[in-house]
Amino acid sequence: MHDSIMGKAIENKIVDLNVTNFREFTQDKHRHVDDYPFGGGAGMLLQAQPIIDAYDHTRAEAEKAGLPAGQVILMDPAGKQFKQHDAESLAQAEHLTFICGHYEGYDERIRSIVTDEYSIGDFVLTGGELPAMVMIDAISRLIPGVLGNQQSTVEESFSTGLLEEPQYTRPAEFRGMKVPEVLMNGDHKKIALWNQKEALRRTYQRRPDLIDHRKLTSTQKHLLADVRIEEEERAASEDTDKKKPFTEN
Amino acid sequence: MHDSIMGKAIENKIVDLNVTNFREFTQDKHRHVDDYPFGGGAGMLLQAQPIIDAYDHTRAEAEKAGLPAGQVILMDPAGKQFKQHDAESLAQAEHLTFICGHYEGYDERIRSIVTDEYSIGDFVLTGGELPAMVMIDAISRLIPGVLGNQQSTVEESFSTGLLEEPQYTRPAEFRGMKVPEVLMNGDHKKIALWNQKEALRRTYQRRPDLIDHRKLTSTQKHLLADVRIEEEERAASEDTDKKKPFTEN
Repeated sequence: MHDSIMGKAIENKIVDLNVTNFREFTQDKHRHVDDYPFGGGAGMLLQAQPIIDAYDHTRAEAEKAGLPAGQVILMDPAGKQFKQHDAESLAQAEHLTFICGHYEGYDERIRSIVTDEYSIGDFVLTGGELPAMVMIDAISRLIPGVLGNQQSTVEESFSTGLLEEPQYTRPAEFRGMKVPEVLMNGDHKKIALWNQKEALRRTYQRRPDLIDHRKLTSTQKHLLADVRIEEEERAASEDTDKKKPFTEN
Repeated sequence: MHDSIMGKAIENKIVDLNVTNFREFTQDKHRHVDDYPFGGGAGMLLQAQPIIDAYDHTRAEAEKAGLPAGQVILMDPAGKQFKQHDAESLAQAEHLTFICGHYEGYDERIRSIVTDEYSIGDFVLTGGELPAMVMIDAISRLIPGVLGNQQSTVEESFSTGLLEEPQYTRPAEFRGMKVPEVLMNGDHKKIALWNQKEALRRTYQRRPDLIDHRKLTSTQKHLLADVRIEEEERAASEDTDKKKPFTEN
């Protein structure tokens, strides 16, 4: 059922998604949208004309529908790194336009219509379609009504500042792997403490940069101190076989 | 034509992509693959059984085809941030398995079959399918034969360490915007210098963290010094209207 969150949002008219193929706006008789770069160089560049004309068309359509021009986002490896707080701010917009071409390169003049440039990460893709879909997914799910359970957008990773604790569902034992006892005994206070501690442990192990000590409660500070000691002891015992203990040096 | 780079790679048998739906492996009579978390909490969790059984199936199929088990990658917001150098190293692999579920959460025991956990960035998505497609695209395009022009994988962003310079293609003038004169006069030495300088300028403006001074040639160091002065002067002149010049304070 979760597979079609975007599909459902469109069906329920919460989100409207229009795709415009800029190839249909080419003035070239062979319908080419790219050409060789001036000054030489490898590869082809997307021409400004088809993309800018396609944008003029979509902007006119949006205006007819009573929408503002809104931000025009270019997917580009040189753009600003897209983060959750960008998704939160873009989710407030009434109308967004994404330009996605090929990472081969754009004619610089395309940037004359662009208000924001984003990259989803320091890696190179064959085109801008996938990263645009990633941004659209991250933004759309924050629009009220898109996700059934509003709670889930609040509780998850990056929103609380910590990674999520390990979680378990049925069966209680699978291929010899058991669910931790504490989660099964119904003591909600103990469970809440265990969850907090394991969220801190995971964050400490994987993303210590996310731990903001000023935002930790007094309980969390104590739990984090315990986690540190446990993890150091575990690391030390795992190292025992590999090197001599410190006292023997 | 570039739209189908992955499609062509599959057609040409350079890359083979198999999709397995773990829903087909559920033992639940209602074909559910998720259940409530032990210990309470919002949302549902993907169960270990359907995913681990699906993996056993794909691994057996791979073995029949003479492939190694290979790395098993879980798409997870708590995973290691995926970067270009990860794409380069994963492109060497003979066989990779991606597990993509919903970011709602996994039963922790799924991690027992996982060798690597990746996140494509600090944002939350409705599922792991899009980020898996992003990784597959970034990895596949590095496999020899997938991109027509091998040159293009070498020259682009993140590979040379600098962002790309502005590029232009025909027409020479579009809606009053002209291609810089230097790119049109055929002086290849001047063009090469202009390209280097503008690549440095873009990197200096947007991603100064990418500039590694030890890797710059002597020419690039001089060009970067010029860029710095030009950009500081431009910033100063743009500020003139807003605040009094420094000398008047």
